[in-house]
Amino acid sequence: MSGEVIQFRRTTPTLAPILSLTATAMNSVNSIILDRMQSEIPLIPTLAGHLIAGGGKRMRPMLTLAGAELVGYQGTRHHKLAAAVEFIHTATLLHDDVVDGSEMRRGKEAANIVFGNPATVLVGDFLFSRSFELMVEDGSLKVLKILSGASAIIAQGEVDQLTAQRKIETSEERYLHIIGAKTAALFAAASRIAAVVAERTDAEEQALDDYGRNLGIAFQLVDDAIDYDTGTEEMGKDRGDDFREGKMTLPVILAYARGSDEERRFWQEAIAGFRTEDEDLAHAVELIRRHDAVAATRERARHFAQRACDALSIFPDGKARQAMVEAAQFAVSRGY
Amino acid sequence: MSGEVIQFRRTTPTLAPILSLTATAMNSVNSIILDRMQSEIPLIPTLAGHLIAGGGKRMRPMLTLAGAELVGYQGTRHHKLAAAVEFIHTATLLHDDVVDGSEMRRGKEAANIVFGNPATVLVGDFLFSRSFELMVEDGSLKVLKILSGASAIIAQGEVDQLTAQRKIETSEERYLHIIGAKTAALFAAASRIAAVVAERTDAEEQALDDYGRNLGIAFQLVDDAIDYDTGTEEMGKDRGDDFREGKMTLPVILAYARGSDEERRFWQEAIAGFRTEDEDLAHAVELIRRHDAVAATRERARHFAQRACDALSIFPDGKARQAMVEAAQFAVSRGY
Repeated sequence: MSGEVIQFRRTTPTLAPILSLTATAMNSVNSIILDRMQSEIPLIPTLAGHLIAGGGKRMRPMLTLAGAELVGYQGTRHHKLAAAVEFIHTATLLHDDVVDGSEMRRGKEAANIVFGNPATVLVGDFLFSRSFELMVEDGSLKVLKILSGASAIIAQGEVDQLTAQRKIETSEERYLHIIGAKTAALFAAASRIAAVVAERTDAEEQALDDYGRNLGIAFQLVDDAIDYDTGTEEMGKDRGDDFREGKMTLPVILAYARGSDEERRFWQEAIAGFRTEDEDLAHAVELIRRHDAVAATRERARHFAQRACDALSIFPDGKARQAMVEAAQFAVSRGY
Repeated sequence: MSGEVIQFRRTTPTLAPILSLTATAMNSVNSIILDRMQSEIPLIPTLAGHLIAGGGKRMRPMLTLAGAELVGYQGTRHHKLAAAVEFIHTATLLHDDVVDGSEMRRGKEAANIVFGNPATVLVGDFLFSRSFELMVEDGSLKVLKILSGASAIIAQGEVDQLTAQRKIETSEERYLHIIGAKTAALFAAASRIAAVVAERTDAEEQALDDYGRNLGIAFQLVDDAIDYDTGTEEMGKDRGDDFREGKMTLPVILAYARGSDEERRFWQEAIAGFRTEDEDLAHAVELIRRHDAVAATRERARHFAQRACDALSIFPDGKARQAMVEAAQFAVSRGY
């Protein structure tokens, strides 16, 4: 059960095993999501559906479902809770798009562009309230505590990121703190609640929390690397958004730390918002490449993904654990 | 205990009795509010404090406290819950200001103007999450159900109002439905939870809910009347905001319903956004005066305030009930 080394590297990790592990339960979660985003106000399901039906990997609810498989949970309570997790995530995406003035999301026009900021903010609020209604229906105060706590931490992380925006002096430590809050807190909570509904030990709860949290950090690091990675197709229309918004992500932090005085002056001007042309972005990408800052960011991501996998060592080996390990491997191999 | 007619009209009703009734408990609520809006991210208490410390009548937490007095509750659980209610309210105000592009709130620059839309949206999210954390700490699933349900209804009401904006054909029924959701639902929930923590009967819970809901409708009607009332000092800097935003409130609905064809054409153009000059507002105010639409709106408000008072008839007469009745009378006398 423990002691063996969890194999990290394999050839071309995919999400196939975790998708297959959770497919049946995810159908049920999707039904709940579609059912509970309805409202007598037609704009609500229309706007929510624009984002929710528009795909998305359902990573966070998948963690709840996979965690439940891992601990051998036999009930169905986690379906509603996984839907609640996805609603929290959707609400934060809607608000993020307003906050960032995003133009694209999941390959199509962002909700704020199609429906305007006001409706986007309010439908986010609706989904957030709805998520709490789902949790209340489930009736576990422990789950409510975990998810309301995670929600407060997410909001703090978002404000913190806003505060750090256009501040070239943001350190790697501060950045890790921010993504630990804005991204990893919900990954951690989504995983942890699987152990809660299954009434497993504190140690197992914590292990799932650790898995989710480290995976969330790895996931965000890779997202941030992809935004500056010339070698990937995932860099689509939104490429360079972080740069133009003056967002301090790890590739920039590392390129700045490793840069010459002249390069640092470029970064100061760019992050302050005075260099937003395509040629500036091209120069930024070149500096990041010069200092291997994307590779270094991906290496950090691998570190956290490895920690995520090792956190699972207290669980017996089997289909669920293997699928979760491969999901972590996939998370850091994206965009290669 | 019941049977007597609750005296509605008195000379110059004030909030003094309800303020005095709830003063000690409100100190405790204010402490909790100040304590729980803190965060390691300094922008959060700064922005939240801008609105929270900036006054506000604390109407909604006051309802929880007064209701607790009315039912003779001896504990202190309602302090935390009243703070949670105020956090929900504050979160919706912050988001409203972003949605409406407000410039002033409570006599000073609105948070969105001072801190920008992004931070205002996110701190609203934080306060909303924090309110759920407070409820979870209290630990009553029943209270959580009431307040999460109210939050979802508020968000739906806000979206509904947005959908009705600039639609001259909005009916009085639709308007009442909207304000029942966006305003009265939280008044109702704030009152109701007093009976829940005191473990009183369903009938008493319902009576407090009815009091709060009707009071909330009366309160919103008077707010909407004041925006077009030339005879009041409360019409300060924000006067005419509803008009310029094309918001369909009862004074407009009634003036339109009672207007000539020519007047209706004016309203159609104005609500559609083609008449936003000071002279247009002056003309709107004149039409509303001509058809007694402010007076009629106030009369509707009196009706709901009376229903609020009568809902209290199942409770014994005494200081608490008298204070709550006078608060309802005050609500509809504002701005005279």
